[in-house]
Amino acid sequence: MVSVAIMGHGVVGSGVAEILTTHKKKLFAGLGEEIYVKKILDLREFPDSPLADRFTKNFDDILNDIEIRVVVEVMGGLKPAYDYVKRCLKAGKNVVTSNKELVAAHGAELLSIAKEENVNFLFEASVGGGIPIIRPMSQCLVANNVDEVAGILNGTTNFILTKMIADGMQFDDALKLAQDLGFAERNPAADIEGHDACRKICILASLAYGKHIYPDSVHTEGITKITLEDVKYAEAFGCVIKLIGKVKKLDDGRIDIMVAPMFVPEESQLANIDYEFNGIMVRGDCTGDVVFYGKGAGKLPTASAVVADVVDCCKHLKTRKFLYWTDGDGKNILPINESVSAMYVRVLGSDIMAKAAELFGTVTKIEMADAESGETAFVTSEVAYGEFTDKIKALESMDVEVKSTIRIGDL
Amino acid sequence: MVSVAIMGHGVVGSGVAEILTTHKKKLFAGLGEEIYVKKILDLREFPDSPLADRFTKNFDDILNDIEIRVVVEVMGGLKPAYDYVKRCLKAGKNVVTSNKELVAAHGAELLSIAKEENVNFLFEASVGGGIPIIRPMSQCLVANNVDEVAGILNGTTNFILTKMIADGMQFDDALKLAQDLGFAERNPAADIEGHDACRKICILASLAYGKHIYPDSVHTEGITKITLEDVKYAEAFGCVIKLIGKVKKLDDGRIDIMVAPMFVPEESQLANIDYEFNGIMVRGDCTGDVVFYGKGAGKLPTASAVVADVVDCCKHLKTRKFLYWTDGDGKNILPINESVSAMYVRVLGSDIMAKAAELFGTVTKIEMADAESGETAFVTSEVAYGEFTDKIKALESMDVEVKSTIRIGDL
Repeated sequence: MVSVAIMGHGVVGSGVAEILTTHKKKLFAGLGEEIYVKKILDLREFPDSPLADRFTKNFDDILNDIEIRVVVEVMGGLKPAYDYVKRCLKAGKNVVTSNKELVAAHGAELLSIAKEENVNFLFEASVGGGIPIIRPMSQCLVANNVDEVAGILNGTTNFILTKMIADGMQFDDALKLAQDLGFAERNPAADIEGHDACRKICILASLAYGKHIYPDSVHTEGITKITLEDVKYAEAFGCVIKLIGKVKKLDDGRIDIMVAPMFVPEESQLANIDYEFNGIMVRGDCTGDVVFYGKGAGKLPTASAVVADVVDCCKHLKTRKFLYWTDGDGKNILPINESVSAMYVRVLGSDIMAKAAELFGTVTKIEMADAESGETAFVTSEVAYGEFTDKIKALESMDVEVKSTIRIGDL
Repeated sequence: MVSVAIMGHGVVGSGVAEILTTHKKKLFAGLGEEIYVKKILDLREFPDSPLADRFTKNFDDILNDIEIRVVVEVMGGLKPAYDYVKRCLKAGKNVVTSNKELVAAHGAELLSIAKEENVNFLFEASVGGGIPIIRPMSQCLVANNVDEVAGILNGTTNFILTKMIADGMQFDDALKLAQDLGFAERNPAADIEGHDACRKICILASLAYGKHIYPDSVHTEGITKITLEDVKYAEAFGCVIKLIGKVKKLDDGRIDIMVAPMFVPEESQLANIDYEFNGIMVRGDCTGDVVFYGKGAGKLPTASAVVADVVDCCKHLKTRKFLYWTDGDGKNILPINESVSAMYVRVLGSDIMAKAAELFGTVTKIEMADAESGETAFVTSEVAYGEFTDKIKALESMDVEVKSTIRIGDL
């Protein structure tokens, strides 16, 4: 029997307790031992829980219980999760977390402590919810150099964009619907401004390239500026707009990493990932493109990924899994102004293509039957982002109103 | 340093040797030890190989070398692979194979020997080539009861069907093109008659439900009878035709397993998996649908999956991975005649819908503008396959020529 503790009894935490109870037999068959939930930490009261006798409000009850070998952190946020996780690891306990904010902010340090203490720190559920991605990347693809990772990493924004594309819904209406359906938080900033996707691509980039990438060093754009007009022009260009987290290894060893809305060609595997689903493409030098698809959030999908990590910890109480990266100083990140892509530009003005060609070289006008009158949209050839923004300023200085600019994803 | 041997130096075997050489640094970083290719077994001569000094024609050179801890079997076929693998396991060596025929025919026995000898027998590359699927199913999804697995498991047939759908190519022409491009063997029977897909769904079913499923107990149809007319009717019905390997757990504990061409709705994630790509959907009771997509064959994709298993064996020289199922007697398989689905039927005869409704109850006629004159196609409601075939016979006894019947996939 292995004793575990769960810190946090919210959506994911109660799901973990539920699966450990409802799937007891299957887990026993997989592990050959019983997993016993000895303590659950939460400041709230749960008198009706079947595990009501295990609750505690005191972290020390977990920290000081030497029988507890695996601690699940599903509180979310950094305070007090960071402190608690660090102290558990230093006390020689294995830790499993679904907390992407924690892993993105302190992953390198916590992995290093886990290594020193010869315990495991696992976080499959931090990216892609129930989709296996951390373990396949660290194990199955060990015989590959990862050339690129690109994904739809946030279900809320994907739901909103899908509603705009499929139903012609305005952004605000789609957001409200997502909130009503429980896909979006009351304060949706972390989702719609791209921060959640940024944390996830940082975790995947750290894993793929071995050095910690901190979210504040990554160029991050959300979807709040995307309009129905952009969605329609994308369609006319054979694309859909998706919020993409992306990291690519360059020939000089640096990485090009960002989170931004992109035009995704309809034939791309990522184009068909709709509504609240997530999809992650890993391009290995041997495997080629491998795509993982599923529900990126939700109580039971996320909890089942946490429980799989718990089982792995219980199997490896005396050995360490290989899941590791060192700290990073951000020097391996390509400055965003040097990042190259083709760009979609929508402007007010109908006699604009000559000016556009003068500034951007080869440009392709997007023809659209029911275009807003007086507007023009075009796609540039590949251009460094710094150069692009300079040219957009030049265009504006000619009294052209630029309504929006979006990257053309090379996906 | 861990010494390994590779049995077979064909497409996959030479790929394994290549990756172990070209990715030495990355593998060392992942394992913390060097993987040394000590012997390569092949009856042919490879004087120009950089590893020319390691070749042997004598299996005993591998079997009796106590330094060799991991043996890679990439010869294919059952003779002598089965005998060699068994003897390696019994000699206490870990074995990695990409040989789906071997795993589908003797998996339970070989897993049982591996368990007795406390070594690992791994076969990630046997299904889905470079797509991680065996490990995610056995590890990441350990906290799920698998309700269903359905996949496009054979790249050759998927290439042929895609060419028929996308380019309106006839079956024979598409097959010839696949052969010219190296996707199909000169003798394509194992692919186009569904046997290859059958072996793979047997492996996934054995893994998901814990009892060995033998290929000869599984209803298997290929794609040789699919015509362009069927492809067009499928499109008119909002579907594409794919060769699907599928296993589903029923409420009574039995499993419904088969390989057959199916109508796949265009909005299904499996509908967009085209050309030589594979895609596998695993439906867990907690995760919901998770889909894995990538190249299901090819030298380096397959070899990289083999090498990942080799690394895993090297890490677990003293402990066993949990990957196991017991022998099966086929009694848990639903007889095909009891398997229920809606069916597509194409007949010669334009005044047929009344007869169809009389026989099958509710039927939906598929309207198609450029239909072959004198033909009618319709879709039945759900019906057990045995009952369906009886009714088709009844239809034929009324002098109606039945041109084709295809399952409507519930995917």
